[in-house]
Amino acid sequence: MDTLHVIKIGGNIIDDEAKLSLFLQSFADLEGRKILVHGGGKLATKLAGQLGVEQTMVDGRRITDAETLKIVTMVYAGYINKNIVAQLQAKGCRSIGLTGADGAMIKAHKRAHASIDYGFVGDVDGVDTGLLQSILEQQIAVIAAPITDDGQGQLLNTNADTIAQEIAKVMGSVYKVILIYSFEKNGVLLDVNDNTSVVPVIDAAVYNDLKSKELIFAGMLPKLDNAFAALQSGVDKVIIGNAEDLAALVNGTSGTTIIHG
Amino acid sequence: MDTLHVIKIGGNIIDDEAKLSLFLQSFADLEGRKILVHGGGKLATKLAGQLGVEQTMVDGRRITDAETLKIVTMVYAGYINKNIVAQLQAKGCRSIGLTGADGAMIKAHKRAHASIDYGFVGDVDGVDTGLLQSILEQQIAVIAAPITDDGQGQLLNTNADTIAQEIAKVMGSVYKVILIYSFEKNGVLLDVNDNTSVVPVIDAAVYNDLKSKELIFAGMLPKLDNAFAALQSGVDKVIIGNAEDLAALVNGTSGTTIIHG
Repeated sequence: MDTLHVIKIGGNIIDDEAKLSLFLQSFADLEGRKILVHGGGKLATKLAGQLGVEQTMVDGRRITDAETLKIVTMVYAGYINKNIVAQLQAKGCRSIGLTGADGAMIKAHKRAHASIDYGFVGDVDGVDTGLLQSILEQQIAVIAAPITDDGQGQLLNTNADTIAQEIAKVMGSVYKVILIYSFEKNGVLLDVNDNTSVVPVIDAAVYNDLKSKELIFAGMLPKLDNAFAALQSGVDKVIIGNAEDLAALVNGTSGTTIIHG
Repeated sequence: MDTLHVIKIGGNIIDDEAKLSLFLQSFADLEGRKILVHGGGKLATKLAGQLGVEQTMVDGRRITDAETLKIVTMVYAGYINKNIVAQLQAKGCRSIGLTGADGAMIKAHKRAHASIDYGFVGDVDGVDTGLLQSILEQQIAVIAAPITDDGQGQLLNTNADTIAQEIAKVMGSVYKVILIYSFEKNGVLLDVNDNTSVVPVIDAAVYNDLKSKELIFAGMLPKLDNAFAALQSGVDKVIIGNAEDLAALVNGTSGTTIIHG
């Protein structure tokens, strides 16, 4: 089975031109089949401010009204996605930018929540492998922006971590999939303020132990729960670590590797 | 040889929600392989106004400075392109939205002009057929936004008519290509103020005759010159007509059909 790397980058890298360029060089240098899923960064918030569109956050999540959906579609699927594609191609990495809507790659529905109306936010129902595979087999990297549609004409703002995970899970039937969550920290930390306190390897037993001792930063729990869910759904390995060390994350010398118990 | 329709829609349809929906229904209903190239409409100008980015026009062409490039990338490749994709999928037409930058589909360079600096405007050098063909053969319609890149990291604002024409020419080696320029008029008119004065068929002899009698509206001349150039480069037929009559344009009962002499 060929290897596929599915790599998520967070907003802090998107917002930093120099760091983004270095990251994209590492991504371009990575051999074999690869998918990059990017978040949004602060550009959408900035544009909303310029346009006088008020942003409402509930539990750290942006409420996506119609105007905000328009903004994130423009920024994520337009500006960020196409600039990443152009930069990667300048670095010798042929790339195609897609949203989940393109080619009906990701099936999603508008989130229904008992008490909070998140607006035009999508939850993922499934991912189609055929189109992705046909592109990857042409040695073209896929750059995915976190926008989906519901099949009924409605675009939806969708969590980029979730998109990376759902793509990784489904592609596990075709490739040996390595899922990498890259962000501003060096991995899963024992002390959130100490970037050297990385736990190098976490399996289910270690995770349960760390959780019971309350040694894991609360913000990391959903990422780890998602990582184990991914492992149980066909992903070979999940790596969490610093986007500035992509090459080291890939070869296992940096970050936290999450494996089956 | 299978038939491929390459259809360009202009801004007037993009700007009219009801007309766009009807057009997209006709496009969805069209059988076989198809590519839709869309222009921008007034949304980019409106957004530029909201953001206080002054727009400079020279000879009817927008000068694309860095801020304007950002705006057209957001509007064309993001908002318009993804909304068309979502709407088509709701109408049963699986679609993928691409710019010329995606998959290095279109090779372009920044326009060099002796006296006018058009800014980040691209002229097309060539089109790659492989990726397009692989998508079309999966029964997925391609929705192309008029943005390209120069292979060196620079996105470029590129004329949508040109993109439609260049795609049509190159795909003529693989398919029997029908190139349709749809806009707000019923075709090539003998009297620009009379939408019933359509010339149904134009070949080289008719064109030269009409030109010598100055019977062709000046704005139509470049479109017709381009149409004949396309015919000489492998396109089977060019049709110019009203975007509201797409089905009739396709079956030849409306618009102006341009054929070899």
